[in-house]
Amino acid sequence: MQIGRHEVWVGWGDVDAASIVYYPKYFHWFDNSTNLLFEQVGLPVTTLADRFGIFAIPIVDTGARFLLPSKFGDRFIVESHVSHWSTKSFRVSHKVLKGEQIAVEGHEVRVWASHHPDDPERFITTPIPQEAKDLFNR
Amino acid sequence: MQIGRHEVWVGWGDVDAASIVYYPKYFHWFDNSTNLLFEQVGLPVTTLADRFGIFAIPIVDTGARFLLPSKFGDRFIVESHVSHWSTKSFRVSHKVLKGEQIAVEGHEVRVWASHHPDDPERFITTPIPQEAKDLFNR
Amino acid sequence: MQIGRHEVWVGWGDVDAASIVYYPKYFHWFDNSTNLLFEQVGLPVTTLADRFGIFAIPIVDTGARFLLPSKFGDRFIVESHVSHWSTKSFRVSHKVLKGEQIAVEGHEVRVWASHHPDDPERFITTPIPQEAKDLFNR
Amino acid sequence: MQIGRHEVWVGWGDVDAASIVYYPKYFHWFDNSTNLLFEQVGLPVTTLADRFGIFAIPIVDTGARFLLPSKFGDRFIVESHVSHWSTKSFRVSHKVLKGEQIAVEGHEVRVWASHHPDDPERFITTPIPQEAKDLFNR
Repeated sequence: MQIGRHEVWVGWGDVDAASIVYYPKYFHWFDNSTNLLFEQVGLPVTTLADRFGIFAIPIVDTGARFLLPSKFGDRFIVESHVSHWSTKSFRVSHKVLKGEQIAVEGHEVRVWASHHPDDPERFITTPIPQEAKDLFNR
Repeated sequence: MQIGRHEVWVGWGDVDAASIVYYPKYFHWFDNSTNLLFEQVGLPVTTLADRFGIFAIPIVDTGARFLLPSKFGDRFIVESHVSHWSTKSFRVSHKVLKGEQIAVEGHEVRVWASHHPDDPERFITTPIPQEAKDLFNR
Repeated sequence: MQIGRHEVWVGWGDVDAASIVYYPKYFHWFDNSTNLLFEQVGLPVTTLADRFGIFAIPIVDTGARFLLPSKFGDRFIVESHVSHWSTKSFRVSHKVLKGEQIAVEGHEVRVWASHHPDDPERFITTPIPQEAKDLFNR
Repeated sequence: MQIGRHEVWVGWGDVDAASIVYYPKYFHWFDNSTNLLFEQVGLPVTTLADRFGIFAIPIVDTGARFLLPSKFGDRFIVESHVSHWSTKSFRVSHKVLKGEQIAVEGHEVRVWASHHPDDPERFITTPIPQEAKDLFNR
């Protein structure tokens, strides 16, 4: 199974008025981590249109639990993998790791999405090809 | 029950590479909405230290479901209320409303937090006074 | 002359580790203010393609001076107008006003931009029609 | 002279509605680069209070010129150094480098700042010790 890992350094502006990481930032790093994982398996999101005819993998559900705060200058690892494949959606599980400790746990459920044929502002979900799933399970 | 409502206008930079709102932004607006609700009931978060001896109301759990995308220039309402009080934590429920439609549903679980007496970088949770809860139920 | 004004409320996450507004945020509000000004004069940026055949008004130069810090919960006005028109570019001047005081002064120089005919990733600048300029000088 | 360099990967949410990097983001990366440079020379900004009695190095002036756009998935280097020392302020010069090409040029002027003795919300500038300057010129 392919696991993505990237290091985050907490910047001066990544914190809030309590001087701990502003929680929406973790979702920014989760999103980055999912995109980096797609790049890692050879399927950058920008190639999805040409290769599989979809335009994006938008989020339909997300969540996180915050176990340990972080502050300016901290470094941690965001570790991510696809933990479940459904017919038209998949779940990415994320962990923020400070050494051995889990600081944050989160997930994203994303769908395989095409533009709606009659309305470019809506999207429709389509089945995920096995070929795409296999890239994450090598 | 006190309900907070504020309007959001989606900026040029609030969207992602698919030109729909970048999902971490919703959590920024949820956080704003919680802080505006505290201000509305007469308890700006900056007064919590003097009035109740806590330093902040950090997040321990959050989540959201994304039902309809939004794009640059859209306007919507974020509507928020405290949907549950526990002894030391509370849940804020959020909705993003585009006219009659719910575009996003989310929640935050936050705790009543003091600095740890021996370690300024940790915090401890303390019981929420009834006086504070009552402000949200008028 | 058309002048745009919008109110900003400083959120919990708009500040930095010194608990004053994180300076890149001001450029976010400047960008919003420019887009709101275009909307105000009847020329939302999303209509530029159909009406004038350009795809955007990207920034080529920007700057700001920071005179007074702001903190969580502050409210201020961002006031913006087009202060200079050149053949293919224009300058938007911005002020952050806290009551009578100027807290931040800034500017953006933007160009009237089309996609390059041979390379969709590059853009070329084109003359700004008088009809567009006139919308800002009523 | 000490030069800081760090790589930036452009995330899915770092772009705007024209699918090029949202310009306020560059200031976020400039700010990160300045803080990483201070860390590199052995003077993390969080140590300034204990070592030199100041609380921060806030921005008073900044600016940038945007020469080449970037898009989702791009990688570039932000290169930064202190290009001028004055008595109480200093200038950090930044470049965004895509291979041999300069994509963005910018600067920050920052001051050596203490809290005002009578008003914790204001700050006063103080002379920068030679010992601090020397750390950047080794």
